[in-house]
Amino acid sequence: MQSKTSANTRQRILETGARLIHKKGFNHTGIKEILDACDVPKGSFYFYFKSKEEFGLAVIDFHFEQFGAISRTIFDELTMPPIARLRAYFETFLEGIKAHQCEMGCPLGNLVLEMSDLSPAMREKLQSGFTSMEHRLTHIIQQAIDRGDITRAIDPNQTAQWLMSGWQGAVLYTKLTRSTAPIEAFFDLMFKEILV
Amino acid sequence: MQSKTSANTRQRILETGARLIHKKGFNHTGIKEILDACDVPKGSFYFYFKSKEEFGLAVIDFHFEQFGAISRTIFDELTMPPIARLRAYFETFLEGIKAHQCEMGCPLGNLVLEMSDLSPAMREKLQSGFTSMEHRLTHIIQQAIDRGDITRAIDPNQTAQWLMSGWQGAVLYTKLTRSTAPIEAFFDLMFKEILV
Repeated sequence: MQSKTSANTRQRILETGARLIHKKGFNHTGIKEILDACDVPKGSFYFYFKSKEEFGLAVIDFHFEQFGAISRTIFDELTMPPIARLRAYFETFLEGIKAHQCEMGCPLGNLVLEMSDLSPAMREKLQSGFTSMEHRLTHIIQQAIDRGDITRAIDPNQTAQWLMSGWQGAVLYTKLTRSTAPIEAFFDLMFKEILV
Repeated sequence: MQSKTSANTRQRILETGARLIHKKGFNHTGIKEILDACDVPKGSFYFYFKSKEEFGLAVIDFHFEQFGAISRTIFDELTMPPIARLRAYFETFLEGIKAHQCEMGCPLGNLVLEMSDLSPAMREKLQSGFTSMEHRLTHIIQQAIDRGDITRAIDPNQTAQWLMSGWQGAVLYTKLTRSTAPIEAFFDLMFKEILV
């Protein structure tokens, strides 16, 4: 079992690395650069992580844990109607994107395009995390259907896929255009045309 | 003016580099690796390209020229109704994705996520190319509206943005899941729910 200090150091490397990789990409971020940025002596890295790929897997877990916590907070807010909770969920991420001036994009979407073909283990972990998020969205959409909030005949799972996929496309265009307009367009499509 | 041989060598470096970058990413592909793969002597690179970034810009032009040629062939096929031409356009790219077993993704979408924050020049060239493609799609959607093929009240430019952005999201999920299901879902959304 690691000591408290040791666990703290591991967490510091992880958080710093996650931030740098989000900004610059996985392959373009060096281990030395991460250690320098969090003031951990060179050589410590392999005490905490077996390889850079294992570190990448830990970074993916780190982001899904953060996003999972956000989704639980919002989705369990039962005083809000299901569709309002769905919208609040994506608006929380939109706030994060605005805070970064539309740069950086989604840390997990970036890793999907960069690493899916280069690391089977990273692709599998990304796929498993995205599938869990999709199930949570399906559940909320089903709640909205059950309450009669959606009158169009929609399939809740397919609609959850449209939300997830449409979001990633919108974030990609936001990073390209440095504008939140593609995300506003995504909201129009999903909340004015489909989830009605 | 470059000789014919010189222009051929430049084109060979460009095509080989574009393929390797599509597969592995821009930063993860070395100049030496590109030259080795197309059997051009080391050192020749800087005779043809001032820097790796300038090479990246040429790779972006190369892809947009190819995609532009595909879109012109399909969009000028006036014997087909406009919506069928739109669908044929995306189906052409779907065939390419199937030929690569759902790996690799869109070479330009990959570069958007990898390079937008790292190279302002590459981001601007990508944005300009995607904007031209969006205008071509807007024009076809307007033709469908003018013919009365679309009865929903839709804005042609916003719908073109949904198509472009939805496509990139679907391709990202295709790369993640190694399945064309996300692209089939994109077709259902756009051609059964919106362009009707």
